[in-house]
Amino acid sequence: MATAIQTQFKRDILDGETNEQVTSLLQQNLINLVDLALLMKQAHWNVFGPNFRSIHLQLDEIIATVRGGSDEVAERIAALGVAADGRSCTVAASSDLADYPREFVDVKQTITLVADATKTTIDSLRSAIETLGDLDPISEDMLIAIAGPMEKHLWMLQAQEA
Amino acid sequence: MATAIQTQFKRDILDGETNEQVTSLLQQNLINLVDLALLMKQAHWNVFGPNFRSIHLQLDEIIATVRGGSDEVAERIAALGVAADGRSCTVAASSDLADYPREFVDVKQTITLVADATKTTIDSLRSAIETLGDLDPISEDMLIAIAGPMEKHLWMLQAQEA
Amino acid sequence: MATAIQTQFKRDILDGETNEQVTSLLQQNLINLVDLALLMKQAHWNVFGPNFRSIHLQLDEIIATVRGGSDEVAERIAALGVAADGRSCTVAASSDLADYPREFVDVKQTITLVADATKTTIDSLRSAIETLGDLDPISEDMLIAIAGPMEKHLWMLQAQEA
Amino acid sequence: MATAIQTQFKRDILDGETNEQVTSLLQQNLINLVDLALLMKQAHWNVFGPNFRSIHLQLDEIIATVRGGSDEVAERIAALGVAADGRSCTVAASSDLADYPREFVDVKQTITLVADATKTTIDSLRSAIETLGDLDPISEDMLIAIAGPMEKHLWMLQAQEA
Amino acid sequence: MATAIQTQFKRDILDGETNEQVTSLLQQNLINLVDLALLMKQAHWNVFGPNFRSIHLQLDEIIATVRGGSDEVAERIAALGVAADGRSCTVAASSDLADYPREFVDVKQTITLVADATKTTIDSLRSAIETLGDLDPISEDMLIAIAGPMEKHLWMLQAQEA
Amino acid sequence: MATAIQTQFKRDILDGETNEQVTSLLQQNLINLVDLALLMKQAHWNVFGPNFRSIHLQLDEIIATVRGGSDEVAERIAALGVAADGRSCTVAASSDLADYPREFVDVKQTITLVADATKTTIDSLRSAIETLGDLDPISEDMLIAIAGPMEKHLWMLQAQEA
Amino acid sequence: MATAIQTQFKRDILDGETNEQVTSLLQQNLINLVDLALLMKQAHWNVFGPNFRSIHLQLDEIIATVRGGSDEVAERIAALGVAADGRSCTVAASSDLADYPREFVDVKQTITLVADATKTTIDSLRSAIETLGDLDPISEDMLIAIAGPMEKHLWMLQAQEA
Amino acid sequence: MATAIQTQFKRDILDGETNEQVTSLLQQNLINLVDLALLMKQAHWNVFGPNFRSIHLQLDEIIATVRGGSDEVAERIAALGVAADGRSCTVAASSDLADYPREFVDVKQTITLVADATKTTIDSLRSAIETLGDLDPISEDMLIAIAGPMEKHLWMLQAQEA
Amino acid sequence: MATAIQTQFKRDILDGETNEQVTSLLQQNLINLVDLALLMKQAHWNVFGPNFRSIHLQLDEIIATVRGGSDEVAERIAALGVAADGRSCTVAASSDLADYPREFVDVKQTITLVADATKTTIDSLRSAIETLGDLDPISEDMLIAIAGPMEKHLWMLQAQEA
Amino acid sequence: MATAIQTQFKRDILDGETNEQVTSLLQQNLINLVDLALLMKQAHWNVFGPNFRSIHLQLDEIIATVRGGSDEVAERIAALGVAADGRSCTVAASSDLADYPREFVDVKQTITLVADATKTTIDSLRSAIETLGDLDPISEDMLIAIAGPMEKHLWMLQAQEA
Amino acid sequence: MATAIQTQFKRDILDGETNEQVTSLLQQNLINLVDLALLMKQAHWNVFGPNFRSIHLQLDEIIATVRGGSDEVAERIAALGVAADGRSCTVAASSDLADYPREFVDVKQTITLVADATKTTIDSLRSAIETLGDLDPISEDMLIAIAGPMEKHLWMLQAQEA
Amino acid sequence: MATAIQTQFKRDILDGETNEQVTSLLQQNLINLVDLALLMKQAHWNVFGPNFRSIHLQLDEIIATVRGGSDEVAERIAALGVAADGRSCTVAASSDLADYPREFVDVKQTITLVADATKTTIDSLRSAIETLGDLDPISEDMLIAIAGPMEKHLWMLQAQEA
Repeated sequence: MATAIQTQFKRDILDGETNEQVTSLLQQNLINLVDLALLMKQAHWNVFGPNFRSIHLQLDEIIATVRGGSDEVAERIAALGVAADGRSCTVAASSDLADYPREFVDVKQTITLVADATKTTIDSLRSAIETLGDLDPISEDMLIAIAGPMEKHLWMLQAQEA
Repeated sequence: MATAIQTQFKRDILDGETNEQVTSLLQQNLINLVDLALLMKQAHWNVFGPNFRSIHLQLDEIIATVRGGSDEVAERIAALGVAADGRSCTVAASSDLADYPREFVDVKQTITLVADATKTTIDSLRSAIETLGDLDPISEDMLIAIAGPMEKHLWMLQAQEA
Repeated sequence: MATAIQTQFKRDILDGETNEQVTSLLQQNLINLVDLALLMKQAHWNVFGPNFRSIHLQLDEIIATVRGGSDEVAERIAALGVAADGRSCTVAASSDLADYPREFVDVKQTITLVADATKTTIDSLRSAIETLGDLDPISEDMLIAIAGPMEKHLWMLQAQEA
Repeated sequence: MATAIQTQFKRDILDGETNEQVTSLLQQNLINLVDLALLMKQAHWNVFGPNFRSIHLQLDEIIATVRGGSDEVAERIAALGVAADGRSCTVAASSDLADYPREFVDVKQTITLVADATKTTIDSLRSAIETLGDLDPISEDMLIAIAGPMEKHLWMLQAQEA
Repeated sequence: MATAIQTQFKRDILDGETNEQVTSLLQQNLINLVDLALLMKQAHWNVFGPNFRSIHLQLDEIIATVRGGSDEVAERIAALGVAADGRSCTVAASSDLADYPREFVDVKQTITLVADATKTTIDSLRSAIETLGDLDPISEDMLIAIAGPMEKHLWMLQAQEA
Repeated sequence: MATAIQTQFKRDILDGETNEQVTSLLQQNLINLVDLALLMKQAHWNVFGPNFRSIHLQLDEIIATVRGGSDEVAERIAALGVAADGRSCTVAASSDLADYPREFVDVKQTITLVADATKTTIDSLRSAIETLGDLDPISEDMLIAIAGPMEKHLWMLQAQEA
Repeated sequence: MATAIQTQFKRDILDGETNEQVTSLLQQNLINLVDLALLMKQAHWNVFGPNFRSIHLQLDEIIATVRGGSDEVAERIAALGVAADGRSCTVAASSDLADYPREFVDVKQTITLVADATKTTIDSLRSAIETLGDLDPISEDMLIAIAGPMEKHLWMLQAQEA
Repeated sequence: MATAIQTQFKRDILDGETNEQVTSLLQQNLINLVDLALLMKQAHWNVFGPNFRSIHLQLDEIIATVRGGSDEVAERIAALGVAADGRSCTVAASSDLADYPREFVDVKQTITLVADATKTTIDSLRSAIETLGDLDPISEDMLIAIAGPMEKHLWMLQAQEA
Repeated sequence: MATAIQTQFKRDILDGETNEQVTSLLQQNLINLVDLALLMKQAHWNVFGPNFRSIHLQLDEIIATVRGGSDEVAERIAALGVAADGRSCTVAASSDLADYPREFVDVKQTITLVADATKTTIDSLRSAIETLGDLDPISEDMLIAIAGPMEKHLWMLQAQEA
Repeated sequence: MATAIQTQFKRDILDGETNEQVTSLLQQNLINLVDLALLMKQAHWNVFGPNFRSIHLQLDEIIATVRGGSDEVAERIAALGVAADGRSCTVAASSDLADYPREFVDVKQTITLVADATKTTIDSLRSAIETLGDLDPISEDMLIAIAGPMEKHLWMLQAQEA
Repeated sequence: MATAIQTQFKRDILDGETNEQVTSLLQQNLINLVDLALLMKQAHWNVFGPNFRSIHLQLDEIIATVRGGSDEVAERIAALGVAADGRSCTVAASSDLADYPREFVDVKQTITLVADATKTTIDSLRSAIETLGDLDPISEDMLIAIAGPMEKHLWMLQAQEA
Repeated sequence: MATAIQTQFKRDILDGETNEQVTSLLQQNLINLVDLALLMKQAHWNVFGPNFRSIHLQLDEIIATVRGGSDEVAERIAALGVAADGRSCTVAASSDLADYPREFVDVKQTITLVADATKTTIDSLRSAIETLGDLDPISEDMLIAIAGPMEKHLWMLQAQEA
């Protein structure tokens, strides 16, 4: 299996140190986004109570956004010459998201937990955006384009808590 | 958070013991299917070498099938009154699938690894189908409908190894 | 009007007695499915209260499933050489479903009544599936394919009662 | 079940007496339209003889028109504050349509029976349109919009009898 | 700028006085419809509380109907040779609708305010329909076609208040 | 051409003897389905007489079903590790279907001949379904899913003979 | 009406003072965009002269862009915890756009007036973009994405004046 | 050819004299609409000069409306039991429209001629609508629905003359 | 009206005499195609008897082909610098087609008359194709592409007469 | 079965001898095209080796072209009054194509065999085109339109052999 | 790079000399078509003056036709075994088209220049068509199919000059 | 031709010197993008060898991206008041891209050449992005949006070289 596997590719878009910083920031956000999609599917399946169906459908719309985002980020990492890592073991070990209950969760509690997880993901994106400005404007632009709709989804979740 | 969370719902479609057997079989297959989708995304992002693009596209088609299957299984579990569990920690801990490399993997090796993971998932579905025949024909029928396309995908992967 | 009307056609897919048992089981389920669609339209028009619109839309989705099911069953009866009967007088006289109120019904009460009617219809399908296994696997397969989505709809209704 | 059910809603689009006249005219037409759809499905399933397929398909096109019409009428009744009634028992008891045979019916006879039922439904619509002109132009307009396509369908049925 | 601007065009579809009456009635309804769309966008952006998302989406569906209606009316006025006026200053000065709060508004209050504004718009359409019957049946027909769906939307809003 | 051709592949989904029985049953049904599609195209091109166009179009709808079925069966055979055989020489030599005339055939005769060929194909499917139940439920399920629509098509052909 | 209305929500994405500056800049641009859409509808309805139809259609394309922009801006304001204000009274009182004639306007004059209004809106966006760079890159990015297509529309309007 | 042809069918939707008046009014409008479509195709092919393409496309949009209208009218005549007449000889002999030149016609002249022909057709529709109100509200409603879009097309033609 | 109208344009794709021959051949075929479409609409509206609906629909499919053909021919004439003539007076005076009855016509007779008219149109196209081969291959190719589908339609009409 | 079958129809588009020559040329090409589609399906199911999926998909695209071609040719034969013959026995006996292996075939060998069969089919089409030019330009044109895309498919197959 | 590049492929559809003549004619037309598309994009970007938008859009429609044509021609050359050449240096050096200005060009001048370039391209196609008739009917047919729509576009451009 | 041509338009979005810098940077990138599309079409037509079809299709996807980019850039230049230049002579003279062979090129070599040309184009975009940040954020944002997908395409090409 010697030559079949390679940790890194030689690409010269960014210089070495910058590349490491950029891909490392992207890698953590990839993990959060993959985990957020799993967490939201968990919520989608196990929510119950009045108004159940509305949140059930809304979650699938957010999941589509989140999955689109994780694909963008992973392919950006690969485009920069580094292997992306979105395996279940990595996600379980390194995600920034709080644990989600294993049980059925009612609508109100579901909204709170999902909004918190979304907020954590956005904070991580925001923090990476700040750093990336000086390192790689194309990666920065990509994260901004992911964070925008996420903040809109957050508002639409939070508006239901009020 | 007392009343907001419930481990199980009272539903009378199947009797208690049967229900436990059925949902427990479905739960393990849910884990395998969720993990298979993650593993295939990992492969999709990190494959390299001649013919790269063809396998890159083929993987996304299989992923759509696998995700459709995990949704079907999870909602069946919930329909039987038990909370489904597809969280990253559970998947990482309980999946039947072998580990996938963290690095870039070439086309040939990717096909072998992905075919193996698909075979593992099918074996688990086949074994559940045999047991479910006497317990719940609707769950059995649902797993048959998932296994059929999976075996077709397996053939299309294996045909490339020959 | 002598030759214009015929009670039965000579077809040799199944032998005579089996055919009678199969079509008689299908006929009762046809009646229940036709009545369920009418009952749900009644609910769709007359529901009121907070969250009204969500259940109003959900009911039309279930109705589409139910109507598809009754068409499948009726055409299967005809394909086996017996005339199907879905006329209003037959449905009113022989349906297994409980009566539905003539007035406006609020959201909570609507969900309970509609879930009960769905449960009655599923019980009748389940009971026919058990018998059909040995008589005609194609009719059995058709009823399983109808019962699956109906049980999922039932869960989505019941999850709102919790 | 006290507050969960209400016979009528307070709305002031039309004055009380007018409202009663309008909704009572609409209610009888609702019953006829619901029954016509059931009768045509019966015909759709049980027609036989040369040219069978053409009338089989044509009936489903007319049914789509009729179902659209009954939905419009029922929601208009509700919009005027009165509960609509399209339940199987009401339809079986109060429909203006003649009985339809329980057996298989040949193409020629099917066309005659279905055309007669359509004519009965149109007569009832026409008679309501005359009265509604002075009571509620929006309800009148809606029935005209239903009657027009019905008269065209009648022509297309009768043209086959000639 | 002398010839670039014209208050009126010579068209002979209706005689002078009739034309003035018809277009003046249409003009006031145009103002109400334009204002209603703005008011509903305001509500769409600032609604909050449980069930928020359902009303958020429902409002956009009504807005599509209302905008379609204002376009129809304005182009009818122009087709009759008179310039339509839907400018913000005219709308603010002459609309029949009550003021809407500048703040965030909860779901219940939003439904009441939006239903009231819809009712005001319908009353204005109904009153114009009565007068237009003798003046211009095509304009009358157009307003009936706008009022019908508006009354149905009103019912779907009010059903949530009950 | 030594290594370029292989009669069989090593796959371990089913044990050897079972695999041979299953694929041999599937192979005969593949031949019948391929021949049925050719026979129906022949009928589609050469039918004549009143009502010609209706049967001309109906035949193309059935052909689409039959071709879908033969593709399913052939790919199932390959998925089980055996080469499928749908070549013209094999089909001409081993088909169960009766010969079809070389001439133009009128509508009535066409319907009889096509219905007979369909019946032959269904008998072969039914007989395989019975045997496959104990050998491979996934192959059995696939043939049931093909036979169901075929029996419905048969009814729609026979209903025109009555 | 006490608790039903709230001027502001507690959100912690931006600190207080920054939030006020950002939302105040966005609010003025919201007003301009809403007014621009109304002004262009006015132009769309009342333009006349040779080539009328081409500009009539072009205006509806620009309106779609402008409405999309105002929706983006308003929902961003809400996402930042402040109520957006797009009511007719606010738009009429605070818009930066010059008055538009109440009469029919010929094609040449229409293009000039509409281009001027577009230019005013762009200047306001450009000025906000400059300030927002240091305050909130996501809001800045959103306004850049709105200004780009607006400048292209401006060119397509101006190219006709030459 | 004796029985193959029939001048009229026995139908009882309207009484005899009313039927004759209604269908005679519809017949003249049918002729005008068929001729208008031919005249506009003539214009569509032979227009020339600056701005040629815009009017060339606009004419095809109006033709689609006109053809839809003539189909509606002819099928209404048939639905009332009388044969419609849209043959070239009848159209050439009885149309109310003025002659159109045989040569190429420039844009300005084309617009004038086409607008005049549209005006003639509308006058004929308007005159029939007035009479039909008391005879058959469904035919009246149909002509109103045709005249509305025609008047809008007329405005869009005339706006280019101004 | 002096300069607004022009009999011919100077174009140099073909030399003068050739151009006259080509456009004169095309002009007669244009007349036949326009008349054929009118004749088929007449048949579409007034056909009656068993199987009515099938021929009613078939005629509209042929009409779409014929109208596409007349558009192609007329725009080819104009592209060659000569005004096309498809006005009702010209069509009525110069068409090669036999007269069609004014009354209702039964299905059998309708098929015969429509097939005859189609044959006449094809003969005229065939004759022009022979001459055009040496004059203008692009016009020849266009008529071949029109004649092919027309001959197929003729077969489908004649197959019903047999 | 006497009158139900007819070898030939009297049609007068071409004279007798020409007709025989034309339809006999078309008949051989029909056989080749039907056989080519069967051969390519065989290849589609049984190909294996690296790059398998790409050729698997490409074959289905070519099959769609080939089937479209055989339908065109068969319906042209019928349109000329002769029964087309595409039955499996005729195809097996008279096809010009070389035998295809019964086993699994690797990608390289598959491409060679499929390209050879395509070349044989093209040669037969080319040879018929040469003869048809003087006999029937419409049939010639049809075969040219089939041969063009076939030669392009051949190139795309051969380019992979290089 | 020895074997990686090849000037010609051995294919036996046409004999050697014919092949050279055919591909050489096609190559010059390829160059003209590629250059025409570039020239029209240049015009599309830099046209100005009243009516700008109409010609701006029309040019993109013609470009789509021209690009489709150049793709057809280039792939035909390759299908005949010769490498096509559409590189910028070849196009700049060998195109038959006159130079186009580097500046903004007004509408009238743009139409003249674009029509001239289209005429040059058509002349080249016409001249090749004449020669190809005896060499390769499939290539001839392809160029006719390209020239036809080009001549129609030319008419639509020239009609605006008149 | 005096006034028909203009080198520059007066527009005041950016000041003079900035405008010159911005448009000059955009102009060079326009040339590269136009040349890249031509080069890739050349590759698309003349590639050969195993795996040919996959790269053939992939190139057309990249071309769609590149053409979209060149249109964006050219219209931005025009929107800033300067004429864009994408003529074949300019592209041949000023492109930064290396020459491409005139012959057939095998898959491996094609990928290398196309990847190099893409890299050159990206370097030029990157260099312009750096300078534009301070001059015009809207132009900068547009180039970033073009460079992103280009870098992803580059990765997908390079991954095949590994």
